[in-house]
Amino acid sequence: MKKTALIMAGGKGERFWPRSRITLPKQFLSLTDDGKTMIQLTVERISPLVELEDVYIATNKNYKELVKQQLPGIPEENILCEPVGRNTAPCIGLGAVHVAKKYDDAVMIVLPSDHLIKNNDIFIETFENACNIAEEGANLVTVGITPNYPETGYGYIKYDASAKSGAGYEVQKFVEKPDLETAKSYLEDGTYLWNSGMFVWRVSTILDCFKAYMPSTYEGLMTIKDSVGTSEQDTVLEKEFPNLESQSVDYGIMEKAENIYILPGSFGWDDVGSWLAVGRIKKNDENGNVVNGNVVTVNTKDCVIEGADKLIATVGLRDIVIVDTKDATLVTTKENAGEIKQVLAKLRENGKNEYL
Amino acid sequence: MKKTALIMAGGKGERFWPRSRITLPKQFLSLTDDGKTMIQLTVERISPLVELEDVYIATNKNYKELVKQQLPGIPEENILCEPVGRNTAPCIGLGAVHVAKKYDDAVMIVLPSDHLIKNNDIFIETFENACNIAEEGANLVTVGITPNYPETGYGYIKYDASAKSGAGYEVQKFVEKPDLETAKSYLEDGTYLWNSGMFVWRVSTILDCFKAYMPSTYEGLMTIKDSVGTSEQDTVLEKEFPNLESQSVDYGIMEKAENIYILPGSFGWDDVGSWLAVGRIKKNDENGNVVNGNVVTVNTKDCVIEGADKLIATVGLRDIVIVDTKDATLVTTKENAGEIKQVLAKLRENGKNEYL
Repeated sequence: MKKTALIMAGGKGERFWPRSRITLPKQFLSLTDDGKTMIQLTVERISPLVELEDVYIATNKNYKELVKQQLPGIPEENILCEPVGRNTAPCIGLGAVHVAKKYDDAVMIVLPSDHLIKNNDIFIETFENACNIAEEGANLVTVGITPNYPETGYGYIKYDASAKSGAGYEVQKFVEKPDLETAKSYLEDGTYLWNSGMFVWRVSTILDCFKAYMPSTYEGLMTIKDSVGTSEQDTVLEKEFPNLESQSVDYGIMEKAENIYILPGSFGWDDVGSWLAVGRIKKNDENGNVVNGNVVTVNTKDCVIEGADKLIATVGLRDIVIVDTKDATLVTTKENAGEIKQVLAKLRENGKNEYL
Repeated sequence: MKKTALIMAGGKGERFWPRSRITLPKQFLSLTDDGKTMIQLTVERISPLVELEDVYIATNKNYKELVKQQLPGIPEENILCEPVGRNTAPCIGLGAVHVAKKYDDAVMIVLPSDHLIKNNDIFIETFENACNIAEEGANLVTVGITPNYPETGYGYIKYDASAKSGAGYEVQKFVEKPDLETAKSYLEDGTYLWNSGMFVWRVSTILDCFKAYMPSTYEGLMTIKDSVGTSEQDTVLEKEFPNLESQSVDYGIMEKAENIYILPGSFGWDDVGSWLAVGRIKKNDENGNVVNGNVVTVNTKDCVIEGADKLIATVGLRDIVIVDTKDATLVTTKENAGEIKQVLAKLRENGKNEYL
């Protein structure tokens, strides 16, 4: 069966401020040494399984030009512009109707646009297996991440180790972000995987699920489907999409549906959640520093310093993150790098919207 | 007797980089909340004792325009430009010959241009007392700072508590920067003061001392003296000054001379040795931060953040110093703020002289 991919790239990606801005979210930034942006890496990664003409990008309409610039090989009609953000369910529905319009049925791989994978070969092998399970029946397949520490910032998915189908297991339940004790027990249990937001299913399967579990959304999606390829396409989307229920696919469908399978992914996944992650991902020098740009360091260790044009000089720093841009410089600790949203909140509060 | 002052302002003042530059050393910077520069504060401080027309500024010729800009009340002929730096003895000698040319004899107060004083009234009272001792005889008088902790970065002066003359004590010896144990013993002893580099004497006394202890320097100084006020003044200075022995007045004269008196100074002295000092000097906000310029702080405590035009955002910092300028930003810890010279060394090494 034809394989297609929907890459979800509508996020605001604020946690990489000041490099990320309202007009340039994380997925359009390069956070790796190879200079490729997150979304470019995502498209490249799936290319052994899916032809470029079958890759769809769902994004906010404000980012359409960025997508065109960064992914010139993607057909323009595959860039699906959400008039407003409505969480993952409507986003996936929009992708599904476009695929359904093009093919009678097809396998649909759904991927976030801002995660990193260390081992692309294992990634592809895992998704080939996932595609097989999805093709075999009306199965919803997700790829979970084998946890290696008790992370409290992700949701978990529990599977039934005794109920195997191919390389996948039957999902027992989705669970919310746990507290530390619970996370530790999940890790010990061994049948809990991190919910990564990566899915595989047949288009026919997911649309059936919309019909069953999110019927009003399904109705809207069908109206949108009818307009695809017509002169009314944009107008209908602008009118219908904002009325779709803002809901995650996890809550709206996955937690209610049956025949859900999960494959453990052990391909070196990183959701690059904050500048802290850049210290893990990019090449460290002999002092454990990641240093780029116009930078002079003295007695500085285990820091991330992303310079720009202006000279950044550091003395005696440990575990500090410095990110310079043309108009703003961030200085934070690795430990606090995840709290950047508080800066953005203060900037909004103080009317300094030009920095957002 | 007429009172005059020589303010020594030839230092490179590198420790306030990136605000201080080769072209703008510390003494020409404002490091206090009142916006006045260090040298402006120094001249203002001594003004109850010395008239502006009797204040001399010894500086490097490159800084003449800065002195004129910042101290428009000082007569231009009182700005004494050293062609090269030759430490404090020749600098003081140059001041002395100018004073000696103007007055038969006079009291001469010698002050660094880059120290801060909290209580100007006590300062003036102390220097009035110092002037009295200097006027009374052929005495060399220095004002030492009563130590309140065992500082290892300053030289100390030991006095004889039983040999008092007015408000001063006879000096027993000058001692180099001590190690911590020694510094502790000095503090306990109670008869050791920090060597602050502030002096008072009659011009006739100090010139006699040059003649006695630095005779070749004295000879050069007399040649310079003869030229003062003539058309040859600049040419003679350019020729003679570089040949004077590069020597501190402490080593060249004070440690050899007799009749040396010291007054304990308890007027809240700070040599503002590094950016760390700015955290002590400037107004702290409720989080213990000194924040100026375009800055947004989140969960940031006990930091010094001197912003400029560009936005500086901080998250989760403790005891960090950030200094922004048009072309360079420094990030260091308070603890390491004194090690800035290593940055300057690296910049020289890398040929980035435009930032010095």
